Amino acid sequence: MPEESFFQDQYFIKMRKERLEAFSDGVIAIIITIMVLEIKVPLGDTFKDLRPLVPVISSYVLSFIYLGIYWNNHHHMMHTVKRVTGDILWANLHLLFWLSLIPFVTGWMGENHFTPLPMAMYGFILLMAAIAYYVLQTRIITNHGRDSLLSRAIGKDIKGKMSPVLYLMAIGLCWISQWIAGGIYILVALIWLVPDKRIEIIFKNEEEREVK
Amino acid sequence: MPEESFFQDQYFIKMRKERLEAFSDGVIAIIITIMVLEIKVPLGDTFKDLRPLVPVISSYVLSFIYLGIYWNNHHHMMHTVKRVTGDILWANLHLLFWLSLIPFVTGWMGENHFTPLPMAMYGFILLMAAIAYYVLQTRIITNHGRDSLLSRAIGKDIKGKMSPVLYLMAIGLCWISQWIAGGIYILVALIWLVPDKRIEIIFKNEEEREVK
Amino acid sequence: MPEESFFQDQYFIKMRKERLEAFSDGVIAIIITIMVLEIKVPLGDTFKDLRPLVPVISSYVLSFIYLGIYWNNHHHMMHTVKRVTGDILWANLHLLFWLSLIPFVTGWMGENHFTPLPMAMYGFILLMAAIAYYVLQTRIITNHGRDSLLSRAIGKDIKGKMSPVLYLMAIGLCWISQWIAGGIYILVALIWLVPDKRIEIIFKNEEEREVK
Amino acid sequence: MPEESFFQDQYFIKMRKERLEAFSDGVIAIIITIMVLEIKVPLGDTFKDLRPLVPVISSYVLSFIYLGIYWNNHHHMMHTVKRVTGDILWANLHLLFWLSLIPFVTGWMGENHFTPLPMAMYGFILLMAAIAYYVLQTRIITNHGRDSLLSRAIGKDIKGKMSPVLYLMAIGLCWISQWIAGGIYILVALIWLVPDKRIEIIFKNEEEREVK
Repeated sequence: MPEESFFQDQYFIKMRKERLEAFSDGVIAIIITIMVLEIKVPLGDTFKDLRPLVPVISSYVLSFIYLGIYWNNHHHMMHTVKRVTGDILWANLHLLFWLSLIPFVTGWMGENHFTPLPMAMYGFILLMAAIAYYVLQTRIITNHGRDSLLSRAIGKDIKGKMSPVLYLMAIGLCWISQWIAGGIYILVALIWLVPDKRIEIIFKNEEEREVK
Repeated sequence: MPEESFFQDQYFIKMRKERLEAFSDGVIAIIITIMVLEIKVPLGDTFKDLRPLVPVISSYVLSFIYLGIYWNNHHHMMHTVKRVTGDILWANLHLLFWLSLIPFVTGWMGENHFTPLPMAMYGFILLMAAIAYYVLQTRIITNHGRDSLLSRAIGKDIKGKMSPVLYLMAIGLCWISQWIAGGIYILVALIWLVPDKRIEIIFKNEEEREVK
Repeated sequence: MPEESFFQDQYFIKMRKERLEAFSDGVIAIIITIMVLEIKVPLGDTFKDLRPLVPVISSYVLSFIYLGIYWNNHHHMMHTVKRVTGDILWANLHLLFWLSLIPFVTGWMGENHFTPLPMAMYGFILLMAAIAYYVLQTRIITNHGRDSLLSRAIGKDIKGKMSPVLYLMAIGLCWISQWIAGGIYILVALIWLVPDKRIEIIFKNEEEREVK
Repeated sequence: MPEESFFQDQYFIKMRKERLEAFSDGVIAIIITIMVLEIKVPLGDTFKDLRPLVPVISSYVLSFIYLGIYWNNHHHMMHTVKRVTGDILWANLHLLFWLSLIPFVTGWMGENHFTPLPMAMYGFILLMAAIAYYVLQTRIITNHGRDSLLSRAIGKDIKGKMSPVLYLMAIGLCWISQWIAGGIYILVALIWLVPDKRIEIIFKNEEEREVK
């Protein structure tokens, strides 16, 4: 039954990617949702009782946007994957590991009203997540060839190279001004907020070429 | 290999929608379930120890129904989507953001036995979720054309326009009578409880026309 | 484009069922897992510190098995569904509502070492879940006809009719003997532990008839 | 309509496996993520406040890797499954049960800074999960025949047989040296960290044979 085993294998590769996506989606969905558990229900019922929640909710909003960006870009990147190898799988779990620590640093930063160390730790986790994302991206390109879709799509990857530098700057600045550090975290989010049009455009170009 | 890239692209668009649905389902499923974690296990084991749980469980029931309605209608609306663009994706995350705050306000309202401010905050989150839903709906129609299935299905969208007005009324009434405010929250839930027949009917009509 | 709309509709019905299954699976998976959060990490590190966990873990095991049974039978039942109507959807959410309260009563029963009231409440939630399951089953049969697969598969549904009676008995017996009540809860679990062979057998018979 | 019922049945078997995979993925994704809830946000905001988190985070990292391994290998194993029978379903739930206790023992071990009993309990849960995995593997082979893909893939299953022995050794050594016990837990993780190449190789061989 060689033919069957061939299809079996096609199925194998396809399923692996789908399960990887589904698992990653699941983990990111849980991370983004359990973060809300860090917002403790206040004991009182007056506006005064809500005031300490302002920094908690602000940091929740920022982390929600960051996780949304990661989910969105992860989605685009995964789309270019044809083969899931062991190193892609573990590079992906490595990324999920750093993302899973976001609720913890979000809660710590929010409850301490953006004091230097919690704020720097927040930047550190973002930095590690960015590095993990870069590693995953590199593993996918290595496995699919320099000429692959992802490789062409990211091009010089200016965003990807700029983000860690900005995070490092922000971490250092936490002890000087929490406003500048926070501003940089928001800035990086804004840079990425635009979904990764590069991959979309390449796809569109190929489709248009097709139509002609 | 232009043909392959064409199918690739078809696959691309299809998968994006499925992942968007799966991610939204995941987040709503988690929200609806972690809400139960706000119901703290009482220390004693008598009927008296259960009494303070009555408002907590009542607000849980109401929020469970609201999230069920959102899941159901989100499902119907997503069904009409053919292309997932960046703005649909972020409008969807924006909706999930407000839904994710429901467990927090549910717990706050329940533990404070429906005092004015927590009850108004509950209405505020429902209002923001309703607006986010409306924005998402508008983005989908803009992307799929005024003549699209969704556009025909929602028609004048009386429910969608009435709900925010009712929420605003309820928020103001929280300081006058918690019973009236609560009654309005229940009323809006009842209005929506009927699944969005409009889309179902349009589908049915098209199918019947098909059979002829 | 009548043909397209026809397929569209086929897709519509199929997707609804898959999303219903996926959502139910998600909720049950979350319920079964967050239940473990009720097992509080003990402060000490001796065997003595583990002793109070014995009732907590026992009740966790029992609830884990119950949720496993519900997931399994829900799976079998959903398999027979061809059309998801509004009433099936809400009957399903109604079932999930009662299942979502299982972690709460499990924690309460475990922490109070099986005293009468928490134990009766546990039985009450099981009773309501059993009734919700029965309602869902009835809605599916009503929608698919008396002669449908599910209808033939469940036959006289002895298990389904016996369980609520046994739960009611156990609830009453909680104030007489916690051992008998607990024994009944275990007994009902054992009765259901066998996966619903009835549906499997009917499927098998049809397949065999096919082969001939 | 015998033909329809035949396809129906094919669909039946296929869906069951997919739902089993999806459910398992969901549970593992939730377990791996809620574990982070055991890392309590510290009250202070100095480096000193972070120090007690070092053992908590170390044990989190180890458990994250273990759950990643289980997810990965479960994935490979499930891939070889063609028929989901009742015993496979329950053997799978049995595995998920032990995995669900990992967050609890991880938190207990981390908060007690690796004292003997919590560390031995951690090993005990790993041991039970390993046994449950072995039972599941055996059930699959029994159902698919000695000559099945999984059977050939695991071969003598040296890793699978060695792990429980190593866990048992580590459990005993917890009272002698926490470093050696911890070292063994890390060692077993490293042994498994390599994804189960055996199944991948068998698939690859079959594919190559195919190409010739």
